[in-house]
Amino acid sequence: MTITPPATSVFETLESEVRSYCRGWPAVFDRAQGSRVFNEDGHEYLDFFSGAGALNYGHNNPVLKRALLDYLERDGITHSLDMSTTAKRAFLERFQDVVLRPRGMDHKVMFPGPTGTNAVEAALKLARKVKGRESVVSFTNAFHGMSLGALAVTGNSMKRAGAGVPLVHGTPMPFDNYLDGRVPDFLWFERLLEDQGSGLNQPAAVIVETIQGEGGINVARPEWLRGLADLCRRRDMLLIVDDIQMGCGRTGPFFSFEEAGIVPDIVTLSKSIGGYGMPMSLTLFRPELDIWEPGEHNGTFRGHNPAFVTATAALDTYWADGASMEKQTLKRGEQAEAVLREICAEHPRSGARYRGRGLVWGLEFTDPGRASRVCARAFELGLLLETSGPRGEVVKLLPALTITPEELDEGLRTLARSVRETA
Amino acid sequence: MTITPPATSVFETLESEVRSYCRGWPAVFDRAQGSRVFNEDGHEYLDFFSGAGALNYGHNNPVLKRALLDYLERDGITHSLDMSTTAKRAFLERFQDVVLRPRGMDHKVMFPGPTGTNAVEAALKLARKVKGRESVVSFTNAFHGMSLGALAVTGNSMKRAGAGVPLVHGTPMPFDNYLDGRVPDFLWFERLLEDQGSGLNQPAAVIVETIQGEGGINVARPEWLRGLADLCRRRDMLLIVDDIQMGCGRTGPFFSFEEAGIVPDIVTLSKSIGGYGMPMSLTLFRPELDIWEPGEHNGTFRGHNPAFVTATAALDTYWADGASMEKQTLKRGEQAEAVLREICAEHPRSGARYRGRGLVWGLEFTDPGRASRVCARAFELGLLLETSGPRGEVVKLLPALTITPEELDEGLRTLARSVRETA
Amino acid sequence: MTITPPATSVFETLESEVRSYCRGWPAVFDRAQGSRVFNEDGHEYLDFFSGAGALNYGHNNPVLKRALLDYLERDGITHSLDMSTTAKRAFLERFQDVVLRPRGMDHKVMFPGPTGTNAVEAALKLARKVKGRESVVSFTNAFHGMSLGALAVTGNSMKRAGAGVPLVHGTPMPFDNYLDGRVPDFLWFERLLEDQGSGLNQPAAVIVETIQGEGGINVARPEWLRGLADLCRRRDMLLIVDDIQMGCGRTGPFFSFEEAGIVPDIVTLSKSIGGYGMPMSLTLFRPELDIWEPGEHNGTFRGHNPAFVTATAALDTYWADGASMEKQTLKRGEQAEAVLREICAEHPRSGARYRGRGLVWGLEFTDPGRASRVCARAFELGLLLETSGPRGEVVKLLPALTITPEELDEGLRTLARSVRETA
Amino acid sequence: MTITPPATSVFETLESEVRSYCRGWPAVFDRAQGSRVFNEDGHEYLDFFSGAGALNYGHNNPVLKRALLDYLERDGITHSLDMSTTAKRAFLERFQDVVLRPRGMDHKVMFPGPTGTNAVEAALKLARKVKGRESVVSFTNAFHGMSLGALAVTGNSMKRAGAGVPLVHGTPMPFDNYLDGRVPDFLWFERLLEDQGSGLNQPAAVIVETIQGEGGINVARPEWLRGLADLCRRRDMLLIVDDIQMGCGRTGPFFSFEEAGIVPDIVTLSKSIGGYGMPMSLTLFRPELDIWEPGEHNGTFRGHNPAFVTATAALDTYWADGASMEKQTLKRGEQAEAVLREICAEHPRSGARYRGRGLVWGLEFTDPGRASRVCARAFELGLLLETSGPRGEVVKLLPALTITPEELDEGLRTLARSVRETA
Repeated sequence: MTITPPATSVFETLESEVRSYCRGWPAVFDRAQGSRVFNEDGHEYLDFFSGAGALNYGHNNPVLKRALLDYLERDGITHSLDMSTTAKRAFLERFQDVVLRPRGMDHKVMFPGPTGTNAVEAALKLARKVKGRESVVSFTNAFHGMSLGALAVTGNSMKRAGAGVPLVHGTPMPFDNYLDGRVPDFLWFERLLEDQGSGLNQPAAVIVETIQGEGGINVARPEWLRGLADLCRRRDMLLIVDDIQMGCGRTGPFFSFEEAGIVPDIVTLSKSIGGYGMPMSLTLFRPELDIWEPGEHNGTFRGHNPAFVTATAALDTYWADGASMEKQTLKRGEQAEAVLREICAEHPRSGARYRGRGLVWGLEFTDPGRASRVCARAFELGLLLETSGPRGEVVKLLPALTITPEELDEGLRTLARSVRETA
Repeated sequence: MTITPPATSVFETLESEVRSYCRGWPAVFDRAQGSRVFNEDGHEYLDFFSGAGALNYGHNNPVLKRALLDYLERDGITHSLDMSTTAKRAFLERFQDVVLRPRGMDHKVMFPGPTGTNAVEAALKLARKVKGRESVVSFTNAFHGMSLGALAVTGNSMKRAGAGVPLVHGTPMPFDNYLDGRVPDFLWFERLLEDQGSGLNQPAAVIVETIQGEGGINVARPEWLRGLADLCRRRDMLLIVDDIQMGCGRTGPFFSFEEAGIVPDIVTLSKSIGGYGMPMSLTLFRPELDIWEPGEHNGTFRGHNPAFVTATAALDTYWADGASMEKQTLKRGEQAEAVLREICAEHPRSGARYRGRGLVWGLEFTDPGRASRVCARAFELGLLLETSGPRGEVVKLLPALTITPEELDEGLRTLARSVRETA
Repeated sequence: MTITPPATSVFETLESEVRSYCRGWPAVFDRAQGSRVFNEDGHEYLDFFSGAGALNYGHNNPVLKRALLDYLERDGITHSLDMSTTAKRAFLERFQDVVLRPRGMDHKVMFPGPTGTNAVEAALKLARKVKGRESVVSFTNAFHGMSLGALAVTGNSMKRAGAGVPLVHGTPMPFDNYLDGRVPDFLWFERLLEDQGSGLNQPAAVIVETIQGEGGINVARPEWLRGLADLCRRRDMLLIVDDIQMGCGRTGPFFSFEEAGIVPDIVTLSKSIGGYGMPMSLTLFRPELDIWEPGEHNGTFRGHNPAFVTATAALDTYWADGASMEKQTLKRGEQAEAVLREICAEHPRSGARYRGRGLVWGLEFTDPGRASRVCARAFELGLLLETSGPRGEVVKLLPALTITPEELDEGLRTLARSVRETA
Repeated sequence: MTITPPATSVFETLESEVRSYCRGWPAVFDRAQGSRVFNEDGHEYLDFFSGAGALNYGHNNPVLKRALLDYLERDGITHSLDMSTTAKRAFLERFQDVVLRPRGMDHKVMFPGPTGTNAVEAALKLARKVKGRESVVSFTNAFHGMSLGALAVTGNSMKRAGAGVPLVHGTPMPFDNYLDGRVPDFLWFERLLEDQGSGLNQPAAVIVETIQGEGGINVARPEWLRGLADLCRRRDMLLIVDDIQMGCGRTGPFFSFEEAGIVPDIVTLSKSIGGYGMPMSLTLFRPELDIWEPGEHNGTFRGHNPAFVTATAALDTYWADGASMEKQTLKRGEQAEAVLREICAEHPRSGARYRGRGLVWGLEFTDPGRASRVCARAFELGLLLETSGPRGEVVKLLPALTITPEELDEGLRTLARSVRETA
């Protein structure tokens, strides 16, 4: 394949240097359907990226699209802040019926502004207000967002440096397996908490991802998550699960924490909750925590009704009938794992290791440059794949949950070829 | 009119207590067109609120709607983070041609995540990074957003208290006319800056709204803005104009600061930039400030292409032909002002005062309860109006820029009646 | 007079660059008596500096010296932390009888560590604990100390920069006459407090000096101090008077705030409280504020008993008989003022202005270099004088309260000559 | 022995509730000599407390006393800020000759204000200024002082809570043996530093005590200290040893870090440096770190010349002749250890454990109440002993270095009896 340099001039001359994805994928994309994306020349790409997890149901999913077009055509209200609307009511009712009630959750639902970082900011504010303490514990290699509150609990040093102010009130603890199993789980954390002289400011809350997507597809074991939930309960800290990237079925069940059998005090959702890649986010919390003043956290785009419409359609289509979506995701996951196992076996000297669950997988190389070269080669071969991890050492697989077995196989074969061709 | 309590149960039982607008307007809205909103029973409301400034072109504007439906129907890519897309390119090109170039601005364009608070966070980060200082000066009764960085430069004490941590690195200065003209402009601010013993941490930047929307429709005089721009230049501080609510033609010209003849170092835009009430925001800055690392500030929904499509259509439709939009807005403003003048004259004992520019107006009462009652009565009479100001003492008029003279007159008459009936 | 460069080598080679006074006064001092200091060559200096206010009773005051020697000779306990000792009891009883009771003050007495900054840290901690708020208001050109808590309410930008962390939780307000009388007292401060949208974090306390010594001998009018006390009372803020430099009779009465007729909630004392230049400090507060936990603020040298002994002797000698000390100080002040008036009249083009009260006076020049040259010339002529103010533009007179009229006259004449010879 | 309640009324009625030691030792002390303290009734106490380490040379040491009296009698200058004085020069020269040079240290000497917390504040400021970073790593159960900068790196939660503001810019790491040897030294710390995604703000410095006195006599192994010094060097962090309590010979050598063979970048000294319990402190640092501006950190009582005099006398008397003081201290330590070993063997069910070095020892009980009862009983038997540790679970032995073997034996026997009688 020959790549013709696309006409990117306005991106290079007018858009800020902060732009990022467009650098790794030098193409101008135009349209998309399911797991296929097309650039303006009609060149086709298979998508193993899925909007960083915002497109779990594929691009322009036809069922959701129909609902959206109908709504827009009939002049359904588009923008409503937190006014009551019929579209919002429909979403709330379906979310309660399809998601919350079947899981025994009586959480309240907050619309905090339609971005993940906003959902995290709301979660942190509420936890601090409820407990009357400033400190929040996060984990190594966590990613929670770019606004100052969320950034303070995010690990990446380059992004932290961007704050321009010292990031405070957060303390990192080791994520599961961070110290390679050489230290008992929570030994350090619990010791700090029990010791009145430890110097740790007593935390209001702990915020955690069950699988760290940006951090390198670091998978917390269910027993580790249960241990953390237990620690939070015993030590009077709220447990916040940031399920923005791993929720909405990415790991199999709707919430990624279901496998561990825990119920967090606060949950953040965004990315795929809108279903169609539309900006939307939620902060869920136990009803006894709902001590907000009216309007104490607000934002203009909280009521993005087109997203409510596609979100409702997604819940109806994929989650109303129980566990079939979860089963399919796990099955696809097995398909992915098998190929990843083969790849690692084929390249023992690369130090390649894989890990994941459901339809989120990481393929780590000892040499970070290798992961980057694999993604670049995959792009040439028509596959969209990004790296993650603190040094970009992990190839991250995030196909749509709606991907067909054939498409999945095609992508995995392209990945295997890319690994081979970058040896 | 009799108001039947709407079936709001799921809002009351499931949605968080943080909900706000739905409390003042007990209706379930369903569809909307132009300046008209309809509840689920088909009851019609005239909209003098416009999504808090996010719907400058009216609800479901037919031109924008056509462009949006076409895009969605042809499976134009919906979600793209900061990948290059044809829709984004079209927007960038039109924004440059229609907005930046004619105003002699060579600012770079950043897509910081599609909410106003995100645009402000990016602006503050960049200013701090460029200057290597933490402190930012804001103004009394400023409103810049709810995430921690933006909240620290926001005035409202209830919202600040929601942070749960002390808000630092910001210092408030008096907005124009804050001290009733008893103190020369910038006397205090400049004295602090020139005095090496003042105790003011040297600011990286000043962030200002030209008209404070949430703060009570406080209008800065052009000469005050020029004085501020001059002070920033002389004292090595970046000038950030937060044009989220007042930009996109709200005050007449595309940017609200044009009347003052100043060009800020950094500008934030959101709300109506997407045109259709779709989440979108921009941070603009002089090219020499563009020292971002790739990906140093990111976010999942930066590339919400449907908003690019409607944004482009709005620029084409309303701003490509020069000043006609501005002229129309100023003319409508005169129409509004005339009625507000009458109202104030009619109710001398209420202490009513009005102020505004273009199509943003405030009607202040000595008794804050009066403003609230006026809005409640207006709602009964089918007019959507909200209050603003630190004590909710100001009735805020924010009709769509596309409102017809007849609709505007109708709303103003309803307002006048509401004032009369709450005396 | 020819100045022979003293053998300062170890100061230059071993002592840190942070050293300061030794640079302006290139001499190695050896002994002192009353208002006279002698260098190692026996050269005599008249002291108008008095240890920056720590030597109000002169150097090695014979009455205090006798008490100290007796105590040391009989092996009175020297170091006791906050154990009870007979020396401490004697001090507490005398302080109560001679200082507190006659002034109707029922303040509790805390020994917070024997430095001024420690007294201020304790005051700020207690105020924050009592009010449950972080923010403290200080004033332009305030000086309260060098540890992080005190430094955050200190104005000098060079010293603030030394912190190495952003100094937060403090907000400067204009000191009396800061804006040259162009703004009504407290107009800005009160407006910020009354406005729920001002953005000022509600302060726990206000900390103020009645005369700013380091800040340039800025004298607050009694009515300004009363206005401030009234504002604190009305707005639920504690009033802290930092009387470290101006207390112990410097302005006439024992406490510098007595003239204004106010009683602060919290008072800090240090410098001359020990009487003999011995490290000692006190934090006084209304009994209802005494919510400290035992040991919540501690420090090794709180119980420096030699200082208790000299402090008690100073109270007995100078303050037990009522107002004679105050009268003498005010009389000496008139003597100083008369000469300062002459000096200013004699040098109209220098822009010289004087201000002060009791035995603290400042002589300000338009050209900061002039003040510095005056002090340098005075040193050559055998007079110790330092500058103060944000640009070092003020010659600061701080003779011992025990200075004789003849010595005072001698020093004032030397000052006049120094001004003349630096024209 | 019958304890008559002493006449403590003024302490209870006038002194703040913050007072602490006087509660555990209900006596009014009057005079002292060597290791003996006498209350006002002439009752004698043997001192195993030594002013919390400020009286290493005993109370009112006759050699130091003679030097002090001579100085005071001849009107040697008492108070001099950082002016050059003959007493200061003598101290600097002796400190260089006796302490620094023989140890190969070319550190600069700073007089930061005569309290330990001030020395720590200066050290932290300088480290932050040199490295341009805010964050400092401290250790669990550290104690560094009560002013805000020092308190932020102190572990005790009660004392931290006293700050009234969130304490930030510090992160605790596990002190040696904190996790009972279950985790390799510095595994966690180094992992955080090497991982660009860990979320740890890159520290400017590490501050450590070689033996944590307030923290419970926690003794760092020499190899742990060497590992820490190595880590600091490799990871570009300054190493600050806070030797305020353990320096001046407490552990044997003059500096407590000598045994480990390390040379810190910055050292703080206070407590016994003045020799006679007089307020004094030093901050030492490598010459290349001496980037202070003149006066950037100051304080009124930096130049407490009587302390220079006794400090010089102490250096001359105890440290000028090489290692004899060290040898004697280690010998006394063996004497103490032998008895502590016996005590632990005698009370196996108490869980008693001992640890220490030189003349600092801790005797820990499983039941914190036991340690407190032991000290109370010892007081009744005429022995001054305090507890330390986060729960007060450790009896702390801190006899004067000048204690005789007989006195030491007497105290140890009283301790043994107190343990026995509280079983």
